[in-house]
Amino acid sequence: MNRGRPRSGHVDEAVADAVRALLAEAGYQALSIDGVAARAGVGKAGIYRRWRSKAEMVFAVVVHGPHPVAPADSGSLRADLAALAERIIGLLSGPYARLVLPGLTADLSADPALAARFQAGVIDAERALVAEILDRARARGEEAGDDAAFVHALLLGPIYTYLFLAGGEVPPGLADRLAGTAVAALGTKESP
Amino acid sequence: MNRGRPRSGHVDEAVADAVRALLAEAGYQALSIDGVAARAGVGKAGIYRRWRSKAEMVFAVVVHGPHPVAPADSGSLRADLAALAERIIGLLSGPYARLVLPGLTADLSADPALAARFQAGVIDAERALVAEILDRARARGEEAGDDAAFVHALLLGPIYTYLFLAGGEVPPGLADRLAGTAVAALGTKESP
Repeated sequence: MNRGRPRSGHVDEAVADAVRALLAEAGYQALSIDGVAARAGVGKAGIYRRWRSKAEMVFAVVVHGPHPVAPADSGSLRADLAALAERIIGLLSGPYARLVLPGLTADLSADPALAARFQAGVIDAERALVAEILDRARARGEEAGDDAAFVHALLLGPIYTYLFLAGGEVPPGLADRLAGTAVAALGTKESP
Repeated sequence: MNRGRPRSGHVDEAVADAVRALLAEAGYQALSIDGVAARAGVGKAGIYRRWRSKAEMVFAVVVHGPHPVAPADSGSLRADLAALAERIIGLLSGPYARLVLPGLTADLSADPALAARFQAGVIDAERALVAEILDRARARGEEAGDDAAFVHALLLGPIYTYLFLAGGEVPPGLADRLAGTAVAALGTKESP
């Protein structure tokens, strides 16, 4: 009965361990779903039930889990956004994320079908967290707007820039500063 | 006397033509300084006098020239930043930039020496344009702060996110909206 094969509840963990081990050994380009299945001792079908591509699998394992949830309600828009920004910084600056994200981004630009799946599975999932935070704020009577995609780009973009385009280090206090920036932008009427 | 070799003043143009042609034929990974020198009919020394690496050469040719200048003084911080953001959008969304930037970013993360040169030659040059715009604003008495790196990340980051991480399209009005966001952030005192 598949002795040595992890049971269903352990597949996520076995796959995550295998992905990390193979990334450390040979990097992102060389990693394959076949290789991960063999290393994890799970069937490829079990992997494809969870993720539709290598890119989504790797992103889920090394950046965030398959079902990210919004930070706990802090009672203010600025603090909620700062908590989310802090989490994005943590996720993107981990050693495996640094190993994977630039190569993954290059794959996206070369493969429109992959980019569409990444958009649906990752970007839209993150934007939904922002939308939840904006909903909470509006329910409290805060000025929050409803453009989750823009607020998401205001947080993710500068973090990605510092980490992957401009030197590799995030300046101290960045999460709170980005949250303050987003709040200032949302509360400000457009100039004519 | 080197018939067929472009004269010094034409080297930039010959190299630019060769880079674009080779990118269109075989993409960023396959491009080499040797190949560009041969195609352009210029000496490798002439290329290395201008750029210290393939990445810097390609970036200069397909994204911005070797010596970017700040947009003309519009008389307001917001309009100056919007003009710069509009230019960044134009630079990053051109067909060659789309072909090159993700692979170039992946190279940076794998090569610290290259990343350091990219930082000095490209990121610091763009930050200097932002610093010039902030200087102008302060001279007019506008609230502008002096953190050019942060303002640069506020412009470049969301643009990069929309173009290369989240679907490939920049929403209408983004440049002005980012400029307004930066101005709102700079004019707002930090919360305690």
